[in-house]
Amino acid sequence: MSKKWVSILLLQLCFFSYGSCGTVLVWPMDFSHWINLKTILEKLTEKGHGVTVLVPNVRYIIDSADSSGLNFEVFSVPFGKEEADEFLRNVLFKMIYELPNLSYWEAAWGFYETIVYFSKNVKLTCEAVVFNQTLIQKLRKAGYDVLVSDSGLPCGDLIAEMLQIPLVHSLRFTMGNVYEKYCGALPCPLSYVPVTLSQLTDKMTFMERVKNSLMSFLFDFCWYSFDKNWEQLYSEALGRPTTLCETMGKAEMWLIRTYWDFEFPRPYLPNFEFVGGLHCKPAKPLPEEMEKFVQSSGDHGIVVFSLGSMVKNLTDEKSNVIAAALAQIPQKVLWRYKGKKPATLGPNTKTYDWIPQNDLLGHPKTKAFITHGGTNGIYEAIYHGIPMVGVPMFADQPDNIAHMKAKGAAVEVNFNKMTTADLLNALKTVINDPSYKENAMRLSRIHHDQPVKPLDRAVFWIEFVMRHKGAKHLRPAAHDLTWYQYHSLDVIGFLLACVATVVFIVAKSCLFCCRKFGKTGKKQKRA
Amino acid sequence: MSKKWVSILLLQLCFFSYGSCGTVLVWPMDFSHWINLKTILEKLTEKGHGVTVLVPNVRYIIDSADSSGLNFEVFSVPFGKEEADEFLRNVLFKMIYELPNLSYWEAAWGFYETIVYFSKNVKLTCEAVVFNQTLIQKLRKAGYDVLVSDSGLPCGDLIAEMLQIPLVHSLRFTMGNVYEKYCGALPCPLSYVPVTLSQLTDKMTFMERVKNSLMSFLFDFCWYSFDKNWEQLYSEALGRPTTLCETMGKAEMWLIRTYWDFEFPRPYLPNFEFVGGLHCKPAKPLPEEMEKFVQSSGDHGIVVFSLGSMVKNLTDEKSNVIAAALAQIPQKVLWRYKGKKPATLGPNTKTYDWIPQNDLLGHPKTKAFITHGGTNGIYEAIYHGIPMVGVPMFADQPDNIAHMKAKGAAVEVNFNKMTTADLLNALKTVINDPSYKENAMRLSRIHHDQPVKPLDRAVFWIEFVMRHKGAKHLRPAAHDLTWYQYHSLDVIGFLLACVATVVFIVAKSCLFCCRKFGKTGKKQKRA
Repeated sequence: MSKKWVSILLLQLCFFSYGSCGTVLVWPMDFSHWINLKTILEKLTEKGHGVTVLVPNVRYIIDSADSSGLNFEVFSVPFGKEEADEFLRNVLFKMIYELPNLSYWEAAWGFYETIVYFSKNVKLTCEAVVFNQTLIQKLRKAGYDVLVSDSGLPCGDLIAEMLQIPLVHSLRFTMGNVYEKYCGALPCPLSYVPVTLSQLTDKMTFMERVKNSLMSFLFDFCWYSFDKNWEQLYSEALGRPTTLCETMGKAEMWLIRTYWDFEFPRPYLPNFEFVGGLHCKPAKPLPEEMEKFVQSSGDHGIVVFSLGSMVKNLTDEKSNVIAAALAQIPQKVLWRYKGKKPATLGPNTKTYDWIPQNDLLGHPKTKAFITHGGTNGIYEAIYHGIPMVGVPMFADQPDNIAHMKAKGAAVEVNFNKMTTADLLNALKTVINDPSYKENAMRLSRIHHDQPVKPLDRAVFWIEFVMRHKGAKHLRPAAHDLTWYQYHSLDVIGFLLACVATVVFIVAKSCLFCCRKFGKTGKKQKRA
Repeated sequence: MSKKWVSILLLQLCFFSYGSCGTVLVWPMDFSHWINLKTILEKLTEKGHGVTVLVPNVRYIIDSADSSGLNFEVFSVPFGKEEADEFLRNVLFKMIYELPNLSYWEAAWGFYETIVYFSKNVKLTCEAVVFNQTLIQKLRKAGYDVLVSDSGLPCGDLIAEMLQIPLVHSLRFTMGNVYEKYCGALPCPLSYVPVTLSQLTDKMTFMERVKNSLMSFLFDFCWYSFDKNWEQLYSEALGRPTTLCETMGKAEMWLIRTYWDFEFPRPYLPNFEFVGGLHCKPAKPLPEEMEKFVQSSGDHGIVVFSLGSMVKNLTDEKSNVIAAALAQIPQKVLWRYKGKKPATLGPNTKTYDWIPQNDLLGHPKTKAFITHGGTNGIYEAIYHGIPMVGVPMFADQPDNIAHMKAKGAAVEVNFNKMTTADLLNALKTVINDPSYKENAMRLSRIHHDQPVKPLDRAVFWIEFVMRHKGAKHLRPAAHDLTWYQYHSLDVIGFLLACVATVVFIVAKSCLFCCRKFGKTGKKQKRA
């Protein structure tokens, strides 16, 4: 059956099952973000909705020729692939090798600078859409029902506002949760909600709470500066003064890519839905060759090792340190590594250009997962209940691993400073200390025991927004308040003024009475 | 098949479907609260769980001889039915006829006093359980998996703590949300979250926000006094110093009897689940005689009228005012009323001792619902999309109607001051102005369009707590903080002290330099 007929059949099915099918416009992000978002989009397509993804001609893992039934609207950006490669290499080098050698505060600031640097290309990409009148007209004419935006970086919200269609964010986090907090009205009490990227947990000492507050101030400042950075573009595109925050805040739903297996319990709002791990699925059988290697591990089992889709090579020194540690464990190791084979590589370790990570993590022989700490990988480990050795490098990775450490399911190793012994000890700990497996299994049970699966919840709310042309009944009235009204500062000021007035009047009256009676007393005495 | 065999069959089914079945102990409340809670308990029984309800020998609508498969553990209280009747009459009279004639603040305080008065009997009931060693031993021996407590009034939490079993609250609200806020750590920003019973909405003027804050202070004071009132009993029963708040705060889940169709969007926590309207179901056919009367209304349709399960009689004057208004509308009216037939009763109005309220509200001929504003009735109206005329009398009824008014689905009439014209106008408005029907239908669509039905969510979380012996992963760390830590007052103090120290040192240094250079300058000048 041709693709066209499959689409028509699905559309009919959709009408039959849901009453009506919609059209979804998508503003994606590349790399691991795409893996997550694509799962939602494929499910939407499966349910008969028409999904169109806006993609630049220069991109990485977003494949516009795939057979998933998604439509791609490709637009041109004013930079080439080589330029983008160079740009990305600079960003990665800075984040992996430079920032970790700085002090904590310098690193946090450095990360912000990197994001601003990175957002230069995002801005060019954004301009290539919003100032392309032909494209905007085409999109407007298509009459989409909703725009789903991967809002780790801006622009999706702006396009939704230009097209006057409801917006749904799909988001892991923004730096320090500032956009969720200031634009989404999400309450973030600093006493028990650790600021994202702070590597703190919900149980903080006094000094940690001080650090959390200072981090929050730092990110607030970054946010102010980042928002200003985009203000002109947003205002120009909409033809009226506006801000990035104002536009992002118009979202109907915020689909957050975590859940309470990963996140520390915190206050949230009815239009925030925590759908972490929606891309996870049961393991499929491994390729024959790989299965043979896995089975050869006997009772010792295997260790799965990946540093994610962005890091393909390591320095010779680093790869030798790692391989030497792996060579000393009785487990077989499957290592996703494209670089030169390290001299210290043991016979128990095999490197692969690519591994079926989810299938390996779901294999009964798997004992541990060495991970850079990306959210997708961590969620696959949680899904299958596998303890982790975290080797975080940049972005939210150190923070993610801090979460897993706090929940007792991971041990952390410092990527820049680690020795062979460090990695070996970490591996031995998570494999031999049963508490790590128990905690990973506990998280897995929490993940699997939800009233509705995360993917179904994400799809439900996107469909809800299409069906009802929004979700206004979930939007808190906090959006209509100024910051001083939100914190009731005007009310507190008024009440204090009232109390002060009463105290003043009472005091004056007392004084008046005292004087009067004093005088009368004196007069009487004189008399 | 005997009841015993049905139970065994269900237990087998439960094991087959869910892996294991549990035993649930229940601390209920009487009247409309029971209607709501019973729906959950029957569903739990249906799924094969053993449910035992702790009930006093003196009670009202809780029927221990019903055939729902629930077990009842009846205990004796130190007061008789007549005494309880008299007590209840006093409470109702005070709330319906006395409080509404007072000023707003006096009425709020009066309501608190009534609750304290009412809680005297609740305390006696509580003591009859917690100091009954034989009963407590029996309950302990039974090894229940969870205690589900209707926590509008205290004691369920205390019994759970004594038996050392996980606790789940089923709750409409506590006065001013103080228990949710102080014992459950629920954030309630006063700028857009109206205090319960305040009759305010989420969109407040400056003076309304002042009122909201003052109401919150008042309720905080009431709470402090109410908590103190129960402290001795709780401490004595547990054999250690404790408070009602501390014990209530140990709950694993808070099942709240509202949803975003009724509630204004507000921050909440992962262990709060909004399951409003769980008792609602599709309408069943009416009794033949009633259906005939309904059909005789033709295109005009019918109006359903009930003042709830607690109010059975009205004064002659009041019933005549009401009946005269009903007589003037073209609709047929079905009025649940046990009192003397009013002289002004029109031929279009029939009174009934009892009406199948849900079936009537779900009837296609129904145009409006005259209601006292109890949550159960309001939810049935929302479920079926019926606009309301609210005649609130006491407790949360005025606040409930304020919610429905704000959402454009109700008109309010003052029970104590209403004239025939007032009621007539209100009825004409909700029937003839299409916006009321549209808004009621919008709320109905919101209610029906949820990822999981409220009843299934309530049951899911009770089962979750049984399966996992709690839900600790949803419990915010706010519970471990003191009030000043929670509000970061210690951190703010510390940071202010740091800033002050830095300013002091810099100022002193500047002063020192000025003096030194000043002196040198002077010396040079002199030289």
